[in-house]
Amino acid sequence: MIEHTVSAFDRELELLGRKISEMGGIAEKMLSESIEALINFKIEDAKAIIATDSRLDTLQREIEEEAVHIIARRQPLGADLREIIGAMRISGDLERVGDLAKNIAKRTLKLVNDQRLPRAMIGLRHMGQLAAMQLKEVLDAYGQGDVNRADNVWHRDAEIDALEDSVFRELLTFMMEDPRNISSCTNLLFCSKNVERVGDHATNIAETVHYIVTGEKLPVERPKLAQ
Amino acid sequence: MIEHTVSAFDRELELLGRKISEMGGIAEKMLSESIEALINFKIEDAKAIIATDSRLDTLQREIEEEAVHIIARRQPLGADLREIIGAMRISGDLERVGDLAKNIAKRTLKLVNDQRLPRAMIGLRHMGQLAAMQLKEVLDAYGQGDVNRADNVWHRDAEIDALEDSVFRELLTFMMEDPRNISSCTNLLFCSKNVERVGDHATNIAETVHYIVTGEKLPVERPKLAQ
Repeated sequence: MIEHTVSAFDRELELLGRKISEMGGIAEKMLSESIEALINFKIEDAKAIIATDSRLDTLQREIEEEAVHIIARRQPLGADLREIIGAMRISGDLERVGDLAKNIAKRTLKLVNDQRLPRAMIGLRHMGQLAAMQLKEVLDAYGQGDVNRADNVWHRDAEIDALEDSVFRELLTFMMEDPRNISSCTNLLFCSKNVERVGDHATNIAETVHYIVTGEKLPVERPKLAQ
Repeated sequence: MIEHTVSAFDRELELLGRKISEMGGIAEKMLSESIEALINFKIEDAKAIIATDSRLDTLQREIEEEAVHIIARRQPLGADLREIIGAMRISGDLERVGDLAKNIAKRTLKLVNDQRLPRAMIGLRHMGQLAAMQLKEVLDAYGQGDVNRADNVWHRDAEIDALEDSVFRELLTFMMEDPRNISSCTNLLFCSKNVERVGDHATNIAETVHYIVTGEKLPVERPKLAQ
């Protein structure tokens, strides 16, 4: 009877983990595709990304509800409890990543296909790739319970911040050179900020993985690149 | 003996509630003061706001840790469990509000005191006041467990979004009129986006209060103003 209960509990945890994986897959795909849609002015792709987001919202609600039910029914302790609390936190971060990708897609719809823009987008694409890599890396770390891998993601976030700074300055220069660039460039400024925030969520997830595996918290202050 | 245990549990819940109140007070103050510092180019005030933020981070960590301990030790169910989960969620939102206010304060340091700017700031101040009011209102609703008051906050978020839209367009016009405005106006654009996001967090808190009190969730889609 106890064995039955334990294995039912394991199945519940596994189901939570699978839902996080599904969320992670959707969020990664939304992020990469939103950057490509933006850079290539793909309106239809952008619309498809916007439509995907509700699936993430639904999954997050399901994860939260199931987590609360598991806690109430199983009254887990220690590592089991951390895993459940961690799943709730990670689902929150992934839901936010989806929102940010959706926001990039919405801005794609506002962007005029403009020959002057591609130069400004090189840095943005680079940032997007870096953020997508960080997100993939931290979700793999979560899947494998690999705290070193999670810590590496945490330490690398400063690179995205530094890139965002350079993209910001480049976009400002574009706007000053030609006022016709202002409207599109402000949209790109927000996109670049959104990508930076995806990096922050990857860092949050890294902290959560660290907490799940070790029971300890990383320092409050995040690393900055020496400049 | 049981009575002793129950009252110890009540004290723990009360302590959580007090810490949320403390966080709420700090976040409200940071938000209002950051808008005033921005609008009046008060560099020293902005620096003081930036320094305050770490207190919110500490409180959030304490609330999370205590919530996890209470769940593990007391194994609460139903309304008690919702209250604890709710406290964790609200502390996350308030920590983010503090980050957004800190970000506004940081941008104040970058802003050049410019005679042309005040006109652009009228809408921003109005947004800030509305967001501060929404935040205060939803924290009162939380303190009193008043679900109608929370629902009203939830319904009013569309007003902040509409204001943000008009501030955005105004700032764009400023930039187009005179390229010397571009640098400061991009900072104000981000400040206005930050205020809008404070409104989103107030809405999140309203949803959490609704959930704590009723055990039910508000619909996924948030109301939009007819335009």
